[in-house]
Amino acid sequence: MTLYSRTVADAEPYVPGEQPKGIRIKLNQNESPYPPCPGVKAVLETINYEDFRLYPDTGAYELRAAIAETLGVSHDMIFAGGGSDEILSFAFMAFFNGGDRVYYPDITYGYYRVLAKLFGLEPREIPLDAGFRINVDDYLNADGHIVFANPNAPTGIALTAGEIEPLLAANPDRLFISDEAYVHFSDGKGCESLLNKYKNLLIVRTYSKSYAMAGMRIGYALGDPKLINILDRVKDSFNPYNFDRVSLAAGIAAVRGTDYLRDISERTAKTRNETREALRRQDFEVFPSETNFLFIRKRGIGGDFLYRQLNSAGILVRHFNKPRISEFIRVSMGTPEEMGEFVKAIGGIAR
Amino acid sequence: MTLYSRTVADAEPYVPGEQPKGIRIKLNQNESPYPPCPGVKAVLETINYEDFRLYPDTGAYELRAAIAETLGVSHDMIFAGGGSDEILSFAFMAFFNGGDRVYYPDITYGYYRVLAKLFGLEPREIPLDAGFRINVDDYLNADGHIVFANPNAPTGIALTAGEIEPLLAANPDRLFISDEAYVHFSDGKGCESLLNKYKNLLIVRTYSKSYAMAGMRIGYALGDPKLINILDRVKDSFNPYNFDRVSLAAGIAAVRGTDYLRDISERTAKTRNETREALRRQDFEVFPSETNFLFIRKRGIGGDFLYRQLNSAGILVRHFNKPRISEFIRVSMGTPEEMGEFVKAIGGIAR
Repeated sequence: MTLYSRTVADAEPYVPGEQPKGIRIKLNQNESPYPPCPGVKAVLETINYEDFRLYPDTGAYELRAAIAETLGVSHDMIFAGGGSDEILSFAFMAFFNGGDRVYYPDITYGYYRVLAKLFGLEPREIPLDAGFRINVDDYLNADGHIVFANPNAPTGIALTAGEIEPLLAANPDRLFISDEAYVHFSDGKGCESLLNKYKNLLIVRTYSKSYAMAGMRIGYALGDPKLINILDRVKDSFNPYNFDRVSLAAGIAAVRGTDYLRDISERTAKTRNETREALRRQDFEVFPSETNFLFIRKRGIGGDFLYRQLNSAGILVRHFNKPRISEFIRVSMGTPEEMGEFVKAIGGIAR
Repeated sequence: MTLYSRTVADAEPYVPGEQPKGIRIKLNQNESPYPPCPGVKAVLETINYEDFRLYPDTGAYELRAAIAETLGVSHDMIFAGGGSDEILSFAFMAFFNGGDRVYYPDITYGYYRVLAKLFGLEPREIPLDAGFRINVDDYLNADGHIVFANPNAPTGIALTAGEIEPLLAANPDRLFISDEAYVHFSDGKGCESLLNKYKNLLIVRTYSKSYAMAGMRIGYALGDPKLINILDRVKDSFNPYNFDRVSLAAGIAAVRGTDYLRDISERTAKTRNETREALRRQDFEVFPSETNFLFIRKRGIGGDFLYRQLNSAGILVRHFNKPRISEFIRVSMGTPEEMGEFVKAIGGIAR
């Protein structure tokens, strides 16, 4: 008996980072080492559990309004969902048809392939160049949709809005998704400046990294009101109430904490730059990351070896057993103290 | 420019019950008039907002284990999702192929049609009988999947497991979904007794009604481990982290409050039975509901008229402007005091 659908037969589900017990320093999921902003604490203290009996706001309108106000855009340009992942799923369902081609780099966030398989799309995985950068020219004649993580993961390298613009102009009838999970560790603006000119641009962002809210599952999309309306049609068909009352309230508080966001993003970027220099002094190759992680290798030493040795020392990082990047490990930025310990530990391992 | 997919073009998004301001008595969404169990309050007091920086448990394993323990089933028979709606969406994606037929009653939860359209299925809407009951024989030769709300909504009428069993036996290669949102106001068991015998049975339940947790978006599915595994494959492709940290903790606390659940379910059933008798004394036709709502009419008086008059009196109920049931209104059970006011108000309107 085969009860399951063709969709399931083709699926290649996502494998998230490990969440093991007993690790001393957890640097494997690009979580923030800092707590969310104080406004989020106040939410827990003031929210009344008796209200849980009532349905939440179906449209997440107050959350969207708070995000729109912070960004200085019209409220109908904002969609909200349960982290980037749910939003990307809605977007793939909303804008792509089975059999369509979807272009993205060969080395990028693994979830794009998961979604391509789930929705019966034809994935076109374009190799990064020799410097592990996206070569925009490779996509100019793409006969399909394009998804970039920008800054890219796990490399950490960013493209400017100016570098991306030719893709939007060349493909006006195809969606371009700019997945900006790490934007606050970069210039903080990503492709925002292109929104008014291009109606085929959808920016996706998450609270999981810079807002220190991975545990609360909040993300937003930014785009032309027509795109947002289409996302709402899918959301209202697939999961009409996609936020609970606590995450809605916490999401509003977090997005209003702009000074706090800037402060912890800057501290993280400082830790990143200092860690990068310390690793380079130890002859590690380190990409010019604009994120809260570093992608590093020491030629001749396997990434799996580094991963296992660090693990033995109680430090968890991420290793991808994939072509081209098996020598690398991805290291999330912890506190300065944690990164000091990391640098010391890896120095002992990779002498 | 048509950017959106065929999926969106065919979609008929769900229209949830209104959530207006300024209503005195809200009886339109079958929410509980009682707060969640005290354990949920304790969760808010003990959870540390600093942990929000960390990803939640991807698999919701502790929540599933708590549900399994309460039900006395193996943990691999439980799936958890963001309310019944997200679970039904995952199930439609996991088990049905585009073009398949899906059978359900003509008068039932409107979301089944929404999902059928979203996934390109052929909806077969089988009329309830003259007494507004599901006639199981109508489905015995169904060449497709079957979804029942049991007890059915908005009629409130339930079928026994024994009445449903022939459908499972007749269609071993097709999924039967028993959507038991209101089961705790009925016998509390639904189709559970059939689980060991039938591998094509998926039971779906929600915390939104009897657990008084509509605001926290929690539901679970119960079925053969093979079905649960298939649901996980879809979840891990579409929305790997589908719970936040607060809803996970609140869900565990709520399912452990079995005495509290029994208490508020019994109180609600008592209110329902008393309200039914009071309405019958006023010559209303009232179905034998096994839910937390009543579906009522007074012949010759339009349901829309009742809805509007009650609204003017500050009482919000639900009216469906659909064939066969336009004379009816659906009334959720509030507190005994609220229902006393309701009975008095409608008595004045429909003399």
